Amino acid sequence: MTLRMYDLAGADPARRFSPYCWRTKMALAMKGLPVETIAWRFTEKQVLGALGCDKVPVLVDGDRVVTDSWAIAEYLEETYPDRPSLFGGPGGHALARFINAWTDAVLHAGLVRMVVADIAKVLAPEDAGYFRQSREARFGMPLEAVQADREAKLEGFRQSLHPLRMVLRTQPFLGGAAPLYADAIVFGGFQWARCVSPFRLLAADDQVEAWRQRMLDLHGGLARAAIGFD
Amino acid sequence: MTLRMYDLAGADPARRFSPYCWRTKMALAMKGLPVETIAWRFTEKQVLGALGCDKVPVLVDGDRVVTDSWAIAEYLEETYPDRPSLFGGPGGHALARFINAWTDAVLHAGLVRMVVADIAKVLAPEDAGYFRQSREARFGMPLEAVQADREAKLEGFRQSLHPLRMVLRTQPFLGGAAPLYADAIVFGGFQWARCVSPFRLLAADDQVEAWRQRMLDLHGGLARAAIGFD
Repeated sequence: MTLRMYDLAGADPARRFSPYCWRTKMALAMKGLPVETIAWRFTEKQVLGALGCDKVPVLVDGDRVVTDSWAIAEYLEETYPDRPSLFGGPGGHALARFINAWTDAVLHAGLVRMVVADIAKVLAPEDAGYFRQSREARFGMPLEAVQADREAKLEGFRQSLHPLRMVLRTQPFLGGAAPLYADAIVFGGFQWARCVSPFRLLAADDQVEAWRQRMLDLHGGLARAAIGFD
Repeated sequence: MTLRMYDLAGADPARRFSPYCWRTKMALAMKGLPVETIAWRFTEKQVLGALGCDKVPVLVDGDRVVTDSWAIAEYLEETYPDRPSLFGGPGGHALARFINAWTDAVLHAGLVRMVVADIAKVLAPEDAGYFRQSREARFGMPLEAVQADREAKLEGFRQSLHPLRMVLRTQPFLGGAAPLYADAIVFGGFQWARCVSPFRLLAADDQVEAWRQRMLDLHGGLARAAIGFD
């Protein structure tokens, strides 16, 4: 039975921008598992509620429902052990948690401040209202104010990527010679930005940009084909 | 033949504070390999030069000389494959590079600004002169000025540890249920500070502090027994 996945969408149902959903889509592609994605909007809480979930990604595999991108990655690794490994062994599994935490705490925290008002522009009207209200409460200011000085924030953001850059000087992927789920985790953030904003986050000569291009090429250009910018 | 290792020392030859040497000492202990450490001072360049090296750690294993903590970890993993793994498989090997880079770029960069003047105080006189001159050139100010506002820097430093804290909420070590070399990498930074400075970097109720205490307990309290503070 084909796997199904609820995937956050914009006003255009083909615009799929959630960084966490991208982690899962890349993980499924690494495992070689086809998936049928179902467009889902922030305000469709009852759709997920019926599955006992409250946020995407949600993966439905036969009678199993799994939510949370990390839990889904662990589920896929355990359920499909004969497919290519997402973690590359127990050490890679444990250390991917650090990449996950760094991505949430550093990469996403930096990214969102440069694209958050652009996100509101690509949402369906009912979602845009919800998004603006909830995020403006979080930031304590209008989304446009959060994003206003993004040119000035760019240098600090790029500096925060330095650990990533140092690794990518010595190997093509975080996972080594080939990508692992750790690459999908970090890539999800950049793909989130790419799907919602024309703002250029990376300098053309940055090793991180070269890696992002390699990630866009994976799995037949899966991520490159997504509705977005650049 | 017993392994030998050149290990940075202070005025007291028993004070061994280099974070990179601690990475190697913890790695050797994880592998269960006894080592004879040789006190080395910054100004003894000719001692290492005779081995074709210019900085510690330097590991001498029979007729093999290996320098650089990362290269030594890879050497030990390859040369002693029947001993406990430092990386936990190929994924853990690849992702440990990110931990290594994060530690150098974020943890050490934050740490050094809070303890650098204290380092000068524990060095032998000839080393203290070299250290002050080279580090003051790097920071562009007296060491005491770098460190002067450390109380004010503490909150930002602790905030920078958030990815570490997030992981340690879900598992006792970065390596999972048991420590891997990734733990040694990060611990090296905290042990560096502990060996040179009485300054308290971590709050008592921080999960990172609980992990540091677990690391101090490993291998019969190897790191706890070191000459230092707290």
